[in-house]
Amino acid sequence: MSKKKFVKDSMVNMTEFVLPNDTNTLNNLMGGRMMHFMDIAAAISAQKHCNRIVVTASVDHVSFKKGISLGSVVTLRSFVTRSFNSSMEVRIEVWVEDLTRNTKEKSNEAYFTFVAVDQNGNPINVPPIHPETDVEKAYYEGALRRRQLRLILDGKMEPEDADELKAIFYDAKDTKDS
Amino acid sequence: MSKKKFVKDSMVNMTEFVLPNDTNTLNNLMGGRMMHFMDIAAAISAQKHCNRIVVTASVDHVSFKKGISLGSVVTLRSFVTRSFNSSMEVRIEVWVEDLTRNTKEKSNEAYFTFVAVDQNGNPINVPPIHPETDVEKAYYEGALRRRQLRLILDGKMEPEDADELKAIFYDAKDTKDS
Amino acid sequence: MSKKKFVKDSMVNMTEFVLPNDTNTLNNLMGGRMMHFMDIAAAISAQKHCNRIVVTASVDHVSFKKGISLGSVVTLRSFVTRSFNSSMEVRIEVWVEDLTRNTKEKSNEAYFTFVAVDQNGNPINVPPIHPETDVEKAYYEGALRRRQLRLILDGKMEPEDADELKAIFYDAKDTKDS
Amino acid sequence: MSKKKFVKDSMVNMTEFVLPNDTNTLNNLMGGRMMHFMDIAAAISAQKHCNRIVVTASVDHVSFKKGISLGSVVTLRSFVTRSFNSSMEVRIEVWVEDLTRNTKEKSNEAYFTFVAVDQNGNPINVPPIHPETDVEKAYYEGALRRRQLRLILDGKMEPEDADELKAIFYDAKDTKDS
Amino acid sequence: MSKKKFVKDSMVNMTEFVLPNDTNTLNNLMGGRMMHFMDIAAAISAQKHCNRIVVTASVDHVSFKKGISLGSVVTLRSFVTRSFNSSMEVRIEVWVEDLTRNTKEKSNEAYFTFVAVDQNGNPINVPPIHPETDVEKAYYEGALRRRQLRLILDGKMEPEDADELKAIFYDAKDTKDS
Amino acid sequence: MSKKKFVKDSMVNMTEFVLPNDTNTLNNLMGGRMMHFMDIAAAISAQKHCNRIVVTASVDHVSFKKGISLGSVVTLRSFVTRSFNSSMEVRIEVWVEDLTRNTKEKSNEAYFTFVAVDQNGNPINVPPIHPETDVEKAYYEGALRRRQLRLILDGKMEPEDADELKAIFYDAKDTKDS
Repeated sequence: MSKKKFVKDSMVNMTEFVLPNDTNTLNNLMGGRMMHFMDIAAAISAQKHCNRIVVTASVDHVSFKKGISLGSVVTLRSFVTRSFNSSMEVRIEVWVEDLTRNTKEKSNEAYFTFVAVDQNGNPINVPPIHPETDVEKAYYEGALRRRQLRLILDGKMEPEDADELKAIFYDAKDTKDS
Repeated sequence: MSKKKFVKDSMVNMTEFVLPNDTNTLNNLMGGRMMHFMDIAAAISAQKHCNRIVVTASVDHVSFKKGISLGSVVTLRSFVTRSFNSSMEVRIEVWVEDLTRNTKEKSNEAYFTFVAVDQNGNPINVPPIHPETDVEKAYYEGALRRRQLRLILDGKMEPEDADELKAIFYDAKDTKDS
Repeated sequence: MSKKKFVKDSMVNMTEFVLPNDTNTLNNLMGGRMMHFMDIAAAISAQKHCNRIVVTASVDHVSFKKGISLGSVVTLRSFVTRSFNSSMEVRIEVWVEDLTRNTKEKSNEAYFTFVAVDQNGNPINVPPIHPETDVEKAYYEGALRRRQLRLILDGKMEPEDADELKAIFYDAKDTKDS
Repeated sequence: MSKKKFVKDSMVNMTEFVLPNDTNTLNNLMGGRMMHFMDIAAAISAQKHCNRIVVTASVDHVSFKKGISLGSVVTLRSFVTRSFNSSMEVRIEVWVEDLTRNTKEKSNEAYFTFVAVDQNGNPINVPPIHPETDVEKAYYEGALRRRQLRLILDGKMEPEDADELKAIFYDAKDTKDS
Repeated sequence: MSKKKFVKDSMVNMTEFVLPNDTNTLNNLMGGRMMHFMDIAAAISAQKHCNRIVVTASVDHVSFKKGISLGSVVTLRSFVTRSFNSSMEVRIEVWVEDLTRNTKEKSNEAYFTFVAVDQNGNPINVPPIHPETDVEKAYYEGALRRRQLRLILDGKMEPEDADELKAIFYDAKDTKDS
Repeated sequence: MSKKKFVKDSMVNMTEFVLPNDTNTLNNLMGGRMMHFMDIAAAISAQKHCNRIVVTASVDHVSFKKGISLGSVVTLRSFVTRSFNSSMEVRIEVWVEDLTRNTKEKSNEAYFTFVAVDQNGNPINVPPIHPETDVEKAYYEGALRRRQLRLILDGKMEPEDADELKAIFYDAKDTKDS
């Protein structure tokens, strides 16, 4: 698989119709069901990048802004932002449409991380990704910082070693002080 | 609802059997399905605390350590750690058992946040919680710090205002320097 | 598997949220769906006792007292009461909570029987159980009587050989007559 | 609804294909899923008899003789045997076919009881049934005895008042003794 | 498998209860879910005819006359009309009952085609069918004409070679002209 | 809703992962499940065009070329080709990807017809569509011919009145004869 891999190679567009069993007693989409949609879209993106079986390694902070009602159409777009050895970060963006009211708005976005594995479930290296547009490059750069936060939250990195992440706190302070 | 609310009042024990449709092509539980289980357990905990309809507001960073195979038994335990106006933080702990091998191990834990709403979906205040044991008190205290991280990640708080959270970076540094 | 087995080793707590597809046209949980919940909880209890694959052998009489509405939380507790060669009797107790009204009541209970099998589906012996509390001992004793009723209803025992069971009719009569 | 009601008016034929999510780790149909199939067939029979919404009131003893493998075809036939005020007893017979081996055999049978209710869930009277064939008449007669066993098992009848049922024990004894 | 095969050997009766997740926002059964029911019934008919694994090869034009509401009972009857080498045409007839209103009416009918395959998925010959009644013979004859339309629509036959089908257009014209 | 409607306004991209319960005993996607996917994508396209609730009116001939295995990714693209009073024809194109083998191929295509309805289920007029590209115009023109075939197959048009459709038979003949 020596072919050079671009962000667009991993692009996934998914459309889901909110059905009764997906909703809570207010007839709104349950958060866990939305996470399920996001995981499937993101896993397919990761598989498109590495052409391997992938397993979900982590889910970053996700927040849900407002209720999504029964009968709404949920559109997801996901793509790999960067790979690290055997892992891939995938960005997922979600929009919600109410087709009878003809409205469409951004619902939320999230980053999921996947690990490529062989048939025995052991991690296996994945190809690097080549960001092309400015937006893709920004996601590619930001991936380092998000990865450090993940490592700290998982207890695998000491906060003072998180150079990329610390900058947020110090820089913000400096900026404000000056 | 003047009754004093304790952590144990919101305790939920949930047991799920991993079925074929919950698994990926390696016959392992898909991450999104696990998030779905966690969301349902956590939502019931939040409902037990406030006796109101609740909606998922956010999901904190979750990481998945190892594959959970088809036929495994997943046990979830969830409880409210602290409430803030109309929102409640819920801690979810997950264990996995392979009953034919008689093994049981901690899989992961996570924090989900829920908002109590009225019949029109508008936020409504929830009662405070009274932590009793040392462990409950530790989760209660930590809730402030986790909340600041959530607010920063959602762009609702400036990093330099996150007093609770900054301590992690500064203190860690001081500790190491000294 | 020389470890001594107690009732508490097979204890399962399960929590289910009643979703739209679980309900009939009155928005009440369908009896068959409840039986499905009970079977899963009970099968996990039997598996915890014998650490083998188990198959449902029989379901004793179950009665449903009142409707359980959409959005209710169903809590099941199950445990092995006694084992016989390759079979285990499991008691399942069900409670229903309406969390917005803050009510919780016993819904029903039932006994399911499971057989432990090897990979080819052939019956295989299971360990005996050691009842500890008075309540556990009462279920252990009653298991003999319930087993005789099962054997008669399955046409595998002549009614006049059901010593344990006949006592119900004769004793009751004697008690009343005296 | 003055039309005279016959057993054939409530006849339901149902065919189910055993799918992966219906099976346990031996790839056999789970008992609880079978109960779910039986409940749906039986509920439709009861609805055909009374043209009302019905709710499951009780399930009689069911035993499962042998494993039913993934991909099998399960055929159910159900019909009302007798009605009592607001309740109806439904007999369900189940066959299993392995279409690639061209085998078909009786799996099991069971009796479920349903209650007809109005829109508020209150019991409402149902029409009597008119058994026509000898087989239908035998089921009609047996319904009395099965009902007494249900009432005893539910603690609603004293064993010594169960005239129909007691006969099983006494008569069997007499028959054997003579 | 030298046994002579009749239409009645492949007869399947299926009954489905329309559940919430099967319905659209008008609470009517979705067309795609109905197609799913039809495919399962028809596949079982084809399997009964050939005692082989079968795969759906094509679906003929299906039209849906009117909405089928939540809680309705859908009854399907399917049977093989004719076989061609490795393929079988199956006719499916669908009725809808509203049991609380005691109405039953024909909903629609359709023809699905299946191919029998071996364990590797390669086509394998199936036995001929022996129509017995006049109705069965009419479906048997019509199968040729429907097959030509399928071949044309799939681009596998030139319209001018479709002798059976062309008759519809020419004969109809002649009939009208005369 | 005076806005001019284009084909691109109704474009839907849907991605589905083939799960165990979607497959038959050969581990291939069942035809009926594929129809279900197609119906959902197409219904969303129709809703995007008319911003109304829509119901499936008919499904044109669909053929399935080869098996789609468990774990494959199915990609659907659908769009409205033409509207007629209250009905809309939607074209659905399906591709199948095996991501571990990095293959993608066209699976099949189909035309579904939907009717826009008001809250009582009565048909309601939909806006015309404005085809822009040559491909869109070709689908727009072909829609007339396909509609005549549908009307004939539904018995709502006499074959000799199907001017658009008859041309296929006559022209083909002429072409061959000349």
